Amino acid sequence: MDLRDKRIDYDRFHLTEEEAGNDPFELFKRWYTEASKEEIEANIMVVSTSVNNQPDSRIVLLKEVFEQEFVFYTNYTSHKGEQIALNPNVSLLFFWQNHQRQVRVTGTAQKVSAKQSDEYFASRPYESQIGAIASQQSSELTTRGELEALVNELLEKHRNIPVKRPDHWGGYRVAPSHFEFWQGRPSRLHDRICFTKKGDHWNRGRLHP
Amino acid sequence: MDLRDKRIDYDRFHLTEEEAGNDPFELFKRWYTEASKEEIEANIMVVSTSVNNQPDSRIVLLKEVFEQEFVFYTNYTSHKGEQIALNPNVSLLFFWQNHQRQVRVTGTAQKVSAKQSDEYFASRPYESQIGAIASQQSSELTTRGELEALVNELLEKHRNIPVKRPDHWGGYRVAPSHFEFWQGRPSRLHDRICFTKKGDHWNRGRLHP
Repeated sequence: MDLRDKRIDYDRFHLTEEEAGNDPFELFKRWYTEASKEEIEANIMVVSTSVNNQPDSRIVLLKEVFEQEFVFYTNYTSHKGEQIALNPNVSLLFFWQNHQRQVRVTGTAQKVSAKQSDEYFASRPYESQIGAIASQQSSELTTRGELEALVNELLEKHRNIPVKRPDHWGGYRVAPSHFEFWQGRPSRLHDRICFTKKGDHWNRGRLHP
Repeated sequence: MDLRDKRIDYDRFHLTEEEAGNDPFELFKRWYTEASKEEIEANIMVVSTSVNNQPDSRIVLLKEVFEQEFVFYTNYTSHKGEQIALNPNVSLLFFWQNHQRQVRVTGTAQKVSAKQSDEYFASRPYESQIGAIASQQSSELTTRGELEALVNELLEKHRNIPVKRPDHWGGYRVAPSHFEFWQGRPSRLHDRICFTKKGDHWNRGRLHP
């Protein structure tokens, strides 16, 4: 499969120091708001973990940016949950194709409070709640039919009883120590502006493309 | 920023064992071909690296799938190049939003031959070649203007001389040891089919969503 001749120039926007400002969360929110006007799910992000120096990546949905942290929910016994338990260092990546922009974040993850997970779990659709109690996320499954039978049984059982959040399901909040804002530019001469945390302050810099 | 009520159900496709087959490269090519009918750049992938157990991720363009390896090009002295030199374990992630599909790959990266890098470099547009010799990728840049002045100088200098590939620019090929094919399904009950390499053979399995 040869894709060597496939290329598209990125020429919609640029990113100056003035536009970037001094607060990476402000810039993130501005880019997110702009992306959400053209993307169906601008809150799609890649969460990467690493254990024994083997990185692993998957798509997760950002659910909140709160007090300078990025929040997402998952099964704590999934591969990513087990990996975060062993090593809380993670990276996040947002890519907004229409705007030719990426935001790269490195930081550390920790669980949100049980109360916060309860609140979010209670707000999820009934079928997703049932899915969360039925699925032993990332463990081996013999057949799809086995899972569907269990889901049907649980749907029946919980028809008149609210679904309680299982202990193994909840949120993580990621506290960034570094951001890169990448704006695609023509001829691969992209704009890359970084923020690195020093105490309470963010140091801004520009990188070669 | 609260996105907790934002949700879209994934209901376009499913993935059975029969559809998955026994060869992850065949399935990858089929999904790629389908994605490329609806995506502008279906060859966008996330490459994640890890050094000292700190994962790091960025978008890279897949340029070739050749002899069961995924090939991309970059500056060898970029952060990702330095990270791969320290630890060749990487993960790749393809996400095709319209098809509600991800392909997750873990494997190891090594440099392609100088000949292969030369060939690809020679096929790139002149302006991108100049960009590659001008940019000290990922190192600090004082101002955008400094880079643009250097690019203009090099454009002038090379107007009648072909641009030679610099030694610090070239390809990597990633040999996978594990694949996951993720097909989004309603109520978060996604299909996840995995292939793990055992000698010359791929073992297939299904994971809980």
